[in-house]
Amino acid sequence: MSDIDSLKQQLAEAEAALAAIKGSPDDISPLAPKTAPRVHPVRGVTLSAVAAEVRYRGRDDVMLMKLEAGSTLAGVFTKSSTRSAPVLWCERALEGLTAGGGPVGVIANAGNSNAFTGAAGEESTRAMATRAASALGTVPERVFVASTGVIGERLPHQKIEAVIETLAASLTADGWARCAGAIMTTDTFPKLASVQCEIDGVPVTISGMAKGSGMIAPDMATMLAFAATDANIGQSALQALLAEGTDVSFNAVTVDGDTSTSDTLLLGATGKAAHDRIEDAGDGRLDGFRAALRGMLQDLAHQVVRDGEGASKFIEVRVTGAETHAAAKTIALSIANSPLVKTAFAGEDPNWGRIVMAVGKSGEKADRDALTIRFGDILVAEKGWVADSYREEDGAAYMRAQDLVVSADVGVGNGAASVWTCDLTYAYVRINADYRS
Amino acid sequence: MSDIDSLKQQLAEAEAALAAIKGSPDDISPLAPKTAPRVHPVRGVTLSAVAAEVRYRGRDDVMLMKLEAGSTLAGVFTKSSTRSAPVLWCERALEGLTAGGGPVGVIANAGNSNAFTGAAGEESTRAMATRAASALGTVPERVFVASTGVIGERLPHQKIEAVIETLAASLTADGWARCAGAIMTTDTFPKLASVQCEIDGVPVTISGMAKGSGMIAPDMATMLAFAATDANIGQSALQALLAEGTDVSFNAVTVDGDTSTSDTLLLGATGKAAHDRIEDAGDGRLDGFRAALRGMLQDLAHQVVRDGEGASKFIEVRVTGAETHAAAKTIALSIANSPLVKTAFAGEDPNWGRIVMAVGKSGEKADRDALTIRFGDILVAEKGWVADSYREEDGAAYMRAQDLVVSADVGVGNGAASVWTCDLTYAYVRINADYRS
Repeated sequence: MSDIDSLKQQLAEAEAALAAIKGSPDDISPLAPKTAPRVHPVRGVTLSAVAAEVRYRGRDDVMLMKLEAGSTLAGVFTKSSTRSAPVLWCERALEGLTAGGGPVGVIANAGNSNAFTGAAGEESTRAMATRAASALGTVPERVFVASTGVIGERLPHQKIEAVIETLAASLTADGWARCAGAIMTTDTFPKLASVQCEIDGVPVTISGMAKGSGMIAPDMATMLAFAATDANIGQSALQALLAEGTDVSFNAVTVDGDTSTSDTLLLGATGKAAHDRIEDAGDGRLDGFRAALRGMLQDLAHQVVRDGEGASKFIEVRVTGAETHAAAKTIALSIANSPLVKTAFAGEDPNWGRIVMAVGKSGEKADRDALTIRFGDILVAEKGWVADSYREEDGAAYMRAQDLVVSADVGVGNGAASVWTCDLTYAYVRINADYRS
Repeated sequence: MSDIDSLKQQLAEAEAALAAIKGSPDDISPLAPKTAPRVHPVRGVTLSAVAAEVRYRGRDDVMLMKLEAGSTLAGVFTKSSTRSAPVLWCERALEGLTAGGGPVGVIANAGNSNAFTGAAGEESTRAMATRAASALGTVPERVFVASTGVIGERLPHQKIEAVIETLAASLTADGWARCAGAIMTTDTFPKLASVQCEIDGVPVTISGMAKGSGMIAPDMATMLAFAATDANIGQSALQALLAEGTDVSFNAVTVDGDTSTSDTLLLGATGKAAHDRIEDAGDGRLDGFRAALRGMLQDLAHQVVRDGEGASKFIEVRVTGAETHAAAKTIALSIANSPLVKTAFAGEDPNWGRIVMAVGKSGEKADRDALTIRFGDILVAEKGWVADSYREEDGAAYMRAQDLVVSADVGVGNGAASVWTCDLTYAYVRINADYRS
């Protein structure tokens, strides 16, 4: 080989090594679903999205959702003490909401989170709600506002106000996918889920969208998620069902343990389905709906993890044998949020010692000498030490899969919980060291 | 330029870019102290180190410290529920310790932490203590044992027992630096500190060593730290002084929020100084000693952060205006442990929005609309929004320094606390994704 060919080859190799580390901002997560889910329209719900150029250029960045008069709505929000003006607005709106008023609206934008923007933040939120209410034929207090993106920069709400008439004029029942694209920020794919079930023999649909890939941790787990159903469920029952489903979905996933100031999950119910109205969340007729809702919320939440910044592995952490379910969840999150555990997964290193460390630091009761750890079905450690049957090469082979399950039984009780997370890679650092540049 | 020269240049650039990301395992942290500190010998203390090849080859990996008869000793340990056999041994030894017995010993090894090794772990610990006790002319219960390194592999304690006679025969008052080298694992430099002060007009010395660069978080902040003084201080007073100093040093630093199963901090006092014995930690004659001890512990703890895996920035996070000092520390740790904050520092990005996020997620009370944030002396945000005087280019210029101070006043009370941390870089991921390979 000539010198020049040899140099060319060395250069190509060095550049490939660099690309493997750095990735490309346009890369879609390797964990993304291979096919886009089919979203069933929800009777009484229409949506639209448009480009308002709040921050991004050449893509949709504002969306509007309309739920017809008679709808109820439930919401779960970030518990951050520095939560954004739109979150505070939604909390107030939810308190005052009754099924008796006009249509309910949701207006959301991407690129600027309108968080930590002082009094100007409230002004922007109110302006968006007011203009959307007028376009939807309702009152501002029935319009829910959500913003996601950079913190601390004033939201140019005039750009959003300027497109609201266009949004209102283009509302359509099959606007879900377009809206899911409009609310993306560092997301690499739109997140959609849709299920059907029955209430009292009547077919019912639940559809939803979500966005989020960083600052993904309880509470909340995603920055924004909007879902709707045609079920006929009273306000407080709907809120109870949503809270319950969130606990095992969005509040059971974590990417980096950080919590957004903007996290908002809304679930509307239009009541268009022909079953009798149900006011009690404990009503047995809701059993199928409850399971379907939980499944749809978990689907969306898992997609958020699968789009975790820089993620190359999707990991379920199952903890059993804890004092209580809450203790199990604390231990599972301690494992799932540990940078040492997450980098070991990135390196495909079956480093079960770090699982032991993370169990130990959780603050919850665990019996070191009864601890059992499994990678998938492989028994790794039991009774406080590596299992006789365990061979490091089996663990290493298991780690090469894209979807992993790590189980820990801590040997003190019957508490159990699962959480979902992703690994911590070079790409996470790249994305977050350059986010604003 | 010829094709070949151009190719050579491109190749050199690509290789430099790769090297900058990947670093070298032999690199010393860029944050390491420029000169090694001078360590004052401590009367009544001798030390030695030797290569036992527990895991490493061609370097010291076991150390022995002897405190003459009449010494007292204080200890602070990891609170992990999966703490190692040596930690459990030390906790028991400390409970039974009285000044009246024979010499006190410390035996420590690097390369294998003897953690999560079942009943074999206890056997190894006892074997090390027993052999060291016999070599030092004391009882096993007066020998403190510490091990650091890989979790879950049986410690080949026979290799350590085999060198204990050699260690005992080579004890010397100036063995501090050599021992600091022997306990290193992923550390890139040995950590030593030494101060002198007076008690009741009598000169007193405090010297110490530490190791640790990963799993650095309260409680404890370092894996191993051994210090000694010739002061004449009773057992319970010494314990109180150490606990107090640890709170603002080792328990106020964090690298990745992970907690080791082996963290051990010991402080011996030989009583060789000519002042009267002091039994009460509140005794005014200890004021100078208390401050000197705190300074020495902070020096060691800061060195641990400066050797944080992959660290390129040393960051002090100061929180004021919290409800209590404890609340201030919780908020400071929330900022210091946030992956999004730490990657922003790595990218030299003055992303104060992430500071707001981290204050909000801490769970402690904060007034969003009274929040003040400073980078060094630069006022960045006040009253819930970016300061009028703040210019992004000033923040960006500040971020390029190696040592940074970030201050947040949360506007609800008088609680204040400082913690120290480092940034989260590509190199952290590299080191931890490959640790065992």
